[in-house]
Amino acid sequence: MDMDRVVYSRRASRITIFAQLFGILAIILLLIWLLHFREGIEYDSFNGYRVFNVHPLLMFMGYIFMSGQAMMAYHTIPSERSTQKFMHMLLHLIAFVLGIVGLCAVFKFHDMAHLENVFSLHSWIGIGTFSLYGLQWVVGFLTFMGRAQEETKMRVAPWHIAGGRALLYMSICAALTGLMEKYTFLSLNHILRYGEGRLMNFTGLAILLFGVFVDLSVALAHYV
Amino acid sequence: MDMDRVVYSRRASRITIFAQLFGILAIILLLIWLLHFREGIEYDSFNGYRVFNVHPLLMFMGYIFMSGQAMMAYHTIPSERSTQKFMHMLLHLIAFVLGIVGLCAVFKFHDMAHLENVFSLHSWIGIGTFSLYGLQWVVGFLTFMGRAQEETKMRVAPWHIAGGRALLYMSICAALTGLMEKYTFLSLNHILRYGEGRLMNFTGLAILLFGVFVDLSVALAHYV
Repeated sequence: MDMDRVVYSRRASRITIFAQLFGILAIILLLIWLLHFREGIEYDSFNGYRVFNVHPLLMFMGYIFMSGQAMMAYHTIPSERSTQKFMHMLLHLIAFVLGIVGLCAVFKFHDMAHLENVFSLHSWIGIGTFSLYGLQWVVGFLTFMGRAQEETKMRVAPWHIAGGRALLYMSICAALTGLMEKYTFLSLNHILRYGEGRLMNFTGLAILLFGVFVDLSVALAHYV
Repeated sequence: MDMDRVVYSRRASRITIFAQLFGILAIILLLIWLLHFREGIEYDSFNGYRVFNVHPLLMFMGYIFMSGQAMMAYHTIPSERSTQKFMHMLLHLIAFVLGIVGLCAVFKFHDMAHLENVFSLHSWIGIGTFSLYGLQWVVGFLTFMGRAQEETKMRVAPWHIAGGRALLYMSICAALTGLMEKYTFLSLNHILRYGEGRLMNFTGLAILLFGVFVDLSVALAHYV
């Protein structure tokens, strides 16, 4: 580990601090929302809403938060590049697996409540983004973990990075449209509890700012 | 105009073609939605919904689409860099002005319908993004159009670019949460017409893909 790397990591981590703060804030607000205002979280429940609540929790705390951590791994993990790279891959894999469980939860809820699947803009964006995310992981794994030539890696890298950043924002769009859908549903059915609306808005803002700061930490890594 | 620039512009414009296609598609779908399925578009109407419809139209066709054009101006305008730079500034200004009119429309609608302002996550993200967008324009104008030193420009540029890309995605988030809010509202009140839901979803996807390709055209300008 050379000095250059140490200084570089420390500098880049200035922006990652903001990302971590907003990410943790979003998780806390999400938990308050689901546990205090909503029905709680339980995958094997007879109450469909408790099953549903696994979905927003895992899609943010599992998928988005972990994939953000994976994107920042090159700046936040004080280790050699090869370790950072392995953690980048592993964290994305964990994010993907948790995302799948989160998706299963909403399909299970729809089955229980006899609701149609993949109907709203939220679900279209979500499913589309998650599929492309899986594809990006496979292409990334084969290229950067496999025996691809250095030249190929160099050619794929900018697309991998730009694509990953776009996918991050797409997942943020999915999260926010999901929150917005739920909010309008609760509000129009007069089951939005006092203060819940504002809590949901702040949750959405925290999720958005997590995404923005993860993105900036990648974009400005060489400048801060 | 040297050959380097011509080749560069032509290459970078490959991605901008996709951005233009999705941008125009989004405008067409938006117009079909507002004129055929909804009440039409008119700022000075006694029908509040016709006033409201100015809002989605101008926020996308005015604000987001024009600011996307401004971001791509360095690749799409076959001219000298100074002209591209001026157009970049001007298109952003046009986007900002049209955005203000679009915002006025929704405040006017809220007044007419006696609805509360700046209440939903959509409005929080929208107002926040638009304010930061105005700030970004002013800082950009003072730095790059003003008499700032070359060194200052070089130091601000990465932040200007990364911030601009983040603001683009934030505006996309605002648009999609807005669509989602309206969709859920129409759906739960049983005033969503047949086929309208899918049209709205495709509009949302086109808006998202416009944002993604504008972003990629900036991110990958040096690689394609």
